[in-house]
Amino acid sequence: MVAAVRTEFDFAAYLSAARQSVELALDESLGIEQPNSLSEAMRYSLLAGGKRLRPILCLAACQLAGGTITAAMPTAVAIEMIHTMSLIHDDLPAMDNDDLRRGRPTNHKVYGEATAILAGDALLTRAFELVALRSPEVPAECLLKVIGELSLASGAQGLVGGQIVDLESEGKEVDLNTLEYIHLHKTGALLSASVIAGGLIGGANDELLKALSTYARGIGLAFQIIDDILDVTASSDILGKTAGKDLIADKTTYPKLLGLEASRERADQLVTQAKQGLAPWEDRATPLLALADYITGRDR
Amino acid sequence: MVAAVRTEFDFAAYLSAARQSVELALDESLGIEQPNSLSEAMRYSLLAGGKRLRPILCLAACQLAGGTITAAMPTAVAIEMIHTMSLIHDDLPAMDNDDLRRGRPTNHKVYGEATAILAGDALLTRAFELVALRSPEVPAECLLKVIGELSLASGAQGLVGGQIVDLESEGKEVDLNTLEYIHLHKTGALLSASVIAGGLIGGANDELLKALSTYARGIGLAFQIIDDILDVTASSDILGKTAGKDLIADKTTYPKLLGLEASRERADQLVTQAKQGLAPWEDRATPLLALADYITGRDR
Repeated sequence: MVAAVRTEFDFAAYLSAARQSVELALDESLGIEQPNSLSEAMRYSLLAGGKRLRPILCLAACQLAGGTITAAMPTAVAIEMIHTMSLIHDDLPAMDNDDLRRGRPTNHKVYGEATAILAGDALLTRAFELVALRSPEVPAECLLKVIGELSLASGAQGLVGGQIVDLESEGKEVDLNTLEYIHLHKTGALLSASVIAGGLIGGANDELLKALSTYARGIGLAFQIIDDILDVTASSDILGKTAGKDLIADKTTYPKLLGLEASRERADQLVTQAKQGLAPWEDRATPLLALADYITGRDR
Repeated sequence: MVAAVRTEFDFAAYLSAARQSVELALDESLGIEQPNSLSEAMRYSLLAGGKRLRPILCLAACQLAGGTITAAMPTAVAIEMIHTMSLIHDDLPAMDNDDLRRGRPTNHKVYGEATAILAGDALLTRAFELVALRSPEVPAECLLKVIGELSLASGAQGLVGGQIVDLESEGKEVDLNTLEYIHLHKTGALLSASVIAGGLIGGANDELLKALSTYARGIGLAFQIIDDILDVTASSDILGKTAGKDLIADKTTYPKLLGLEASRERADQLVTQAKQGLAPWEDRATPLLALADYITGRDR
């Protein structure tokens, strides 16, 4: 009977339901912001759709560890807020100077640079408020660890550090080590933190936290390799952001360093390794295993 | 004997010692940042001197409540990081477009806009890391409350919200209510949070927290009124930032709305009220009372 349930796991339905619950929670998370212009700018980017991969990873890791969706949701929302902040700031003229994001004008194109910078700041602070004050079910010691994970993943030792090295590497020859440094920090750190935070809230023991960490590192790098591949192979229309941008900016990417075929093989290999670590948890790991496949199979 | 000790309180020595311990802690708080360019930009603004009023208020409130300097120091440092982040972002060309801060070129003038934005982001996330992971002496429940206070004070309901309304008010007629909204949010919120966080860490009861809150609100507004007055009366040389900027930007200020004399009276009145609330704590409140006088007496 267990085997039957396992083969019947409907990932599309799972993903759709998880996304819907995340969208609802995101919408509710920004009710009382003032003033209006700031609130609008925050909502514009936070509710602009997207895969919601990080919050869903957080919820799935929490469930694998034995926790509930409800307990992890404020943290899942906080993580998407941090991710959104990083997108708003990365898109600014002083950084990547991007006009399109998720098929719509970027935040600063609509609200101006000042409001875009401040909306990012407000989302970042709001994220910590959510974890600290809106997670009544979770023990305080656990929430402090979660806040620690999120702050480390977001700052100099995480995505901000990755973004700086990325900006400094534009137009330069970059080796594979530096490329992986950029990706492990810029994308990998927050993806990892999503999984670890979910595990912590679910009450994961050290063994599971270690397996989740290996899993997260693997899918984090694979995710970025696929992003690089899609930048070469997909159109702006499908991506919802400016395609070919890495080439134009003369950024080093996996396809450029390894070639398209070898890049895809590396992504597949990373995902296989990521999944192996979760094997001991069998059926309970099904959503996380399917999410890993989804990451390498996606076309945007 | 108690009376003798009281009259002997040497505020200059107290302030100097408090500042020195804060400077040391700030310096130590940024040891391992990578990459170097980011680390330099963070250190440049965080260690640029300044009054260190917020961390000192935090330490003084903690001591009044019966806690130690050591327990409150990570939070005091975190607050100065948040304050520094707000200065770096406020100075950006898209916002106040300021070239001078504390007598030196602003962060983006030295490191460029992209690094300045990211250095601010990294200081903000680092602040939460400090409170969450580097305050081993303080109970977890208390730290969560502190994180909640700091996030509320920094975001849409605090300094970011104040900054947005401030930017939107440039060149417009603004009434006293709006001016106070701006100041209570842009400056008052984090000053209040400094005092409340210190009180929480020191174990303040509800009665003391309420008195600290009244105190903080009063000195927060008074602080900003004095800032407005100094913008009119002091030179750039003394201020270490561009003087007369509010007039050039056609900003509404207290002197503009009330006149210089009435503005100073209002500041004095606010400080008197702020101090009255702490009267029941007698000698233990001496540093906070002296800090309130210092705020209205300062010339920069």
